[in-house]
Amino acid sequence: MNFASDTTAPAHPLVIEAMNRVNTGIAPSYGSDAVTARLRALLANVLETEDFDFWITASGTASNALALSCFCPPTGAVLCHEEAHIERDERGAVEFFSGGGKLRLLPGFGAKIDPQALTAALESNKPDFVHETPMHVLSLTNLTECGMVYRPEEISAYAERAKAAGLWVHVDGARFANAILGTGSMPAAMSWQAGVDVLNLGLTKTGAAGCEIILLFGAAREKFPELKARAKRSGHMPPKMRFLAAQAEAMLTGSLWTKLAGDANRMARRLADGFEAKGFKQAYPCEGNEVFVMLPSEISAKLRAAGAVFYDWPGGSCRLICSWETAETDVDALLAVL
Amino acid sequence: MNFASDTTAPAHPLVIEAMNRVNTGIAPSYGSDAVTARLRALLANVLETEDFDFWITASGTASNALALSCFCPPTGAVLCHEEAHIERDERGAVEFFSGGGKLRLLPGFGAKIDPQALTAALESNKPDFVHETPMHVLSLTNLTECGMVYRPEEISAYAERAKAAGLWVHVDGARFANAILGTGSMPAAMSWQAGVDVLNLGLTKTGAAGCEIILLFGAAREKFPELKARAKRSGHMPPKMRFLAAQAEAMLTGSLWTKLAGDANRMARRLADGFEAKGFKQAYPCEGNEVFVMLPSEISAKLRAAGAVFYDWPGGSCRLICSWETAETDVDALLAVL
Amino acid sequence: MNFASDTTAPAHPLVIEAMNRVNTGIAPSYGSDAVTARLRALLANVLETEDFDFWITASGTASNALALSCFCPPTGAVLCHEEAHIERDERGAVEFFSGGGKLRLLPGFGAKIDPQALTAALESNKPDFVHETPMHVLSLTNLTECGMVYRPEEISAYAERAKAAGLWVHVDGARFANAILGTGSMPAAMSWQAGVDVLNLGLTKTGAAGCEIILLFGAAREKFPELKARAKRSGHMPPKMRFLAAQAEAMLTGSLWTKLAGDANRMARRLADGFEAKGFKQAYPCEGNEVFVMLPSEISAKLRAAGAVFYDWPGGSCRLICSWETAETDVDALLAVL
Amino acid sequence: MNFASDTTAPAHPLVIEAMNRVNTGIAPSYGSDAVTARLRALLANVLETEDFDFWITASGTASNALALSCFCPPTGAVLCHEEAHIERDERGAVEFFSGGGKLRLLPGFGAKIDPQALTAALESNKPDFVHETPMHVLSLTNLTECGMVYRPEEISAYAERAKAAGLWVHVDGARFANAILGTGSMPAAMSWQAGVDVLNLGLTKTGAAGCEIILLFGAAREKFPELKARAKRSGHMPPKMRFLAAQAEAMLTGSLWTKLAGDANRMARRLADGFEAKGFKQAYPCEGNEVFVMLPSEISAKLRAAGAVFYDWPGGSCRLICSWETAETDVDALLAVL
Repeated sequence: MNFASDTTAPAHPLVIEAMNRVNTGIAPSYGSDAVTARLRALLANVLETEDFDFWITASGTASNALALSCFCPPTGAVLCHEEAHIERDERGAVEFFSGGGKLRLLPGFGAKIDPQALTAALESNKPDFVHETPMHVLSLTNLTECGMVYRPEEISAYAERAKAAGLWVHVDGARFANAILGTGSMPAAMSWQAGVDVLNLGLTKTGAAGCEIILLFGAAREKFPELKARAKRSGHMPPKMRFLAAQAEAMLTGSLWTKLAGDANRMARRLADGFEAKGFKQAYPCEGNEVFVMLPSEISAKLRAAGAVFYDWPGGSCRLICSWETAETDVDALLAVL
Repeated sequence: MNFASDTTAPAHPLVIEAMNRVNTGIAPSYGSDAVTARLRALLANVLETEDFDFWITASGTASNALALSCFCPPTGAVLCHEEAHIERDERGAVEFFSGGGKLRLLPGFGAKIDPQALTAALESNKPDFVHETPMHVLSLTNLTECGMVYRPEEISAYAERAKAAGLWVHVDGARFANAILGTGSMPAAMSWQAGVDVLNLGLTKTGAAGCEIILLFGAAREKFPELKARAKRSGHMPPKMRFLAAQAEAMLTGSLWTKLAGDANRMARRLADGFEAKGFKQAYPCEGNEVFVMLPSEISAKLRAAGAVFYDWPGGSCRLICSWETAETDVDALLAVL
Repeated sequence: MNFASDTTAPAHPLVIEAMNRVNTGIAPSYGSDAVTARLRALLANVLETEDFDFWITASGTASNALALSCFCPPTGAVLCHEEAHIERDERGAVEFFSGGGKLRLLPGFGAKIDPQALTAALESNKPDFVHETPMHVLSLTNLTECGMVYRPEEISAYAERAKAAGLWVHVDGARFANAILGTGSMPAAMSWQAGVDVLNLGLTKTGAAGCEIILLFGAAREKFPELKARAKRSGHMPPKMRFLAAQAEAMLTGSLWTKLAGDANRMARRLADGFEAKGFKQAYPCEGNEVFVMLPSEISAKLRAAGAVFYDWPGGSCRLICSWETAETDVDALLAVL
Repeated sequence: MNFASDTTAPAHPLVIEAMNRVNTGIAPSYGSDAVTARLRALLANVLETEDFDFWITASGTASNALALSCFCPPTGAVLCHEEAHIERDERGAVEFFSGGGKLRLLPGFGAKIDPQALTAALESNKPDFVHETPMHVLSLTNLTECGMVYRPEEISAYAERAKAAGLWVHVDGARFANAILGTGSMPAAMSWQAGVDVLNLGLTKTGAAGCEIILLFGAAREKFPELKARAKRSGHMPPKMRFLAAQAEAMLTGSLWTKLAGDANRMARRLADGFEAKGFKQAYPCEGNEVFVMLPSEISAKLRAAGAVFYDWPGGSCRLICSWETAETDVDALLAVL
């Protein structure tokens, strides 16, 4: 009954198996290996485009900060939700990688940026006014930190406005697969087709050991050499990169990644429905693999006493996350305690 | 006949096996897992001390820069050899992590810092003179970039002088195991007993998939909270850290790491002796797993034509590196071409 | 009728006269001159303490960012009001000087930090939780950006709570003299006696050509060597520092600085009273040399048509600032237009 | 008999007079004032071009680091002489402003970059090799730190090679006027006509109170908005910029700057000739306002005992600098001691 985080789950066995399979013979270092090369074809297929470059890291913080530092200069700002992971949980990584850039924070229900707040922020942007820090990137988190999704048409609308104001569009997709399954959309529709320039396609929470893919689409590809130089100097160009590529390959082959995310989403749905059935209100709609439910303290204490593990969340709800490994029996056991 | 680098070798099978073994059930993220915890006991045993803290990364560049940034402020400098990896091959990682610190470069044969140059540099240090950048850390590379070793008594002598001048002592031990085997010394004698404050105990080149251990000894442990904060914000605190710890555990258990380094060193010795026997002079004595040999260009061309892979090195020699996987047949095949 | 800013005023003639007076003969560079030395005694007298160190810059942005970077590490945050100058008007200077630190923003009427918001922020601070950026400094602006003052007892109360939580206390006193005059308090009572560790005692807006004094009190003095090193490398240790010291000397001698600030405050009072008398409501009480008044757009247009210069301010008011040079005739001419 | 540095001299009286003259009435802040505006015409005349942008700071360190940070990314390096001021005397300012860029050091007699070393460095540059830090700027110091000049044809030759390798060309002209007078060349010939992209035209050592002009020529002008943003956030956009502009205006009007530099050069010449006449060898030819002479220690002691002030210089010489204020009687009094 551990619903603490999808990061506490193990990797899917096929992921380790893939690492084992590539562990043979000499391979060029630093991303020049054959596994990394053939991953490109796989990504092209998944994303329905050839117009991209990619880099793999072992950490979502690294992927977000590396990517954003290529698009936000030290004198600029990234626009994001005030509860975004890059603001709350990455210890100033964007500020560090960018050399002192700023995050500009916007409100919104369910950790989704409020459209009017976005408009107001973009309208107030004065890139030529030297005293104020202008915005260079809009960063969306999909799934959001509260487990909600941005749908393709929302991303398009946000991206359009951001681009009209001269900003690049970044998506922190640490739970991108959950968002895809949550909306029933294709990866392309949730990224480049909607105007996303840079995507962190996270696979760690989905079921890899540690594997996040930074994707640059279209015009953003001009930053690829800079991305690699920044990866190198920040220690995110490990010599034996085949082990990162192998994880990605295992996850993307045969749609393993969306299958695993689908399983996690289904367990979250089952959990959410169970809470609803017992009359407990959800703080945010369950649109992916996370459930935020308002529980009286005696109830949450009772659940914990029975062995359930989950976090209290700002705003008074309890957060329960399902991973690819969460079983129906886990969910049902927890609901049975209620 | 691939002697390009020990980073092109695969991981030892026991390393992947260990990753597979820990891949079961829920584990706390970010280094709070059981594998990381029990690694501590293993390290205490290997290093013959309890007076240390440690952190694991997947990249030597990350380990060096992270460690050095805790000891060298942005207004300070690290003293190192002009051919050190941190100067030549890490794309300004120390400068980045430290927030604009400097490297101060010293000469010396075989990429070992010349003792007189060290003395002169330390004597010229003026920590209170605001215009010049004072030195805060002495960084030694062991094995050096030219495959030579610093012996315990040399490290002690260097460390003593550095500490008398107020500097911390760091060792980049990307090939620490090869240096241990090359000198026949114990890890303790090559690190904290010799006055080393911070050690990067590298295991990737030795046979891991991607695993480098930063060790803080004694007084240097005061920087451990800062080290973790810097690891977090630089993306070097991946959620599923058990996979890093498992690699270290596999390598340190049953002395696998020194066995593998010993194998590599032996192959290098065999190669060096073979070159000597054929009358080819070595640029630097072979003291670890690297051979630097002066080859006429027709000879190096002939070797390459026969399928041998190795690099030309500044100064006119050819560099050939042996890994744990290098076989006697590889060495003998190459020598047979001569 | 120019009420745009106190930075558009010239320097007081005595300031230039002082610069002329010190412009004779050889003087050691970089702050080792006699003028800088004798300024120390003057500051001790003004501040009623010997327990301080100081550095002079020509810019408030430099003074704030330099000072804060000594107390906020790259992994930490500065707590300030969301309208603070360091957040709104310094183009990320604190983020730059600190190497990627963050500003954490608090709300409050009149650009004064709301006491409850402060308490909540301090209570949420988790210095040992590696994922979140902990706060290291509380920065107050006095006068605030809306022209209001923090009184000694308020500063004390805020400082006490900040210090209990392990934070240092900084005051951005770009209009410190106006705040002193506005509260009728002594400089000591508004700084170190109230628990302030670091003060930017600004003199530029008060009547200097370009002169801001960073003051470190008590325990904060341990950072003085670091402050000088950071001043040097950021270009804020100009060779002929006697010209900065001379300005400070002129301003502090014979209480010129408080006389000039008093004149500016009086003109603001006269202006505020004039608006009140005509029935125009103030957005914030006039407690220094700034007036924020709610003017119908036809009125503000009329004033501008008559030659008055002032800024519209976020929130719908008009901001009018008086300087040492503002004359009664300026004020009365403007009021006469109404 | 003070020959310590030209930074210890006062400002020329006309400089303070100019500051006094502009000290009247309201003036827009941050460089939008009339004095700054009309300086543009003066600079166009002096430099014989309209194709430039400029910014003024009060410190040479600021000017160099600000300028270089616009042309050298954090992942890049600046090529300079190993004795350059930016390497030796600015406490890592370039590293700080650039966000962790590197300086790559070259040897050469008299602090002039050795042409062959330059060629070798440029040929070794591998901008696309991600592991090594590529060079982005060549920085020349004119006068050099040893008082020698680069002549227009030398600058052209160096610039041509640097540009062919994709580098920008920067000149640290802290003593630019002395170099102009030393070569008998025009400012244009010593800067943009020779291929210089960025010039720090220093006036502080020449006779200002604190005034250095960053000049961007031709294609380099694209960096002007970035330069201003960086100036702002580093505290080098003081509000009352008219006082900086006034200094520049005073110096450039009626060729005051070259007159003062000519005076200083003549005194240095007289000093050098005097030493030669007494049989003391110079370490470097006197080509500007600095004399480096080999003096037996009893002689230097005797001079100091008689009241002469000067520095010992690395390499065994004594450095004596003449300023605009150095009088023939100073020189002759010193020579009389010999």
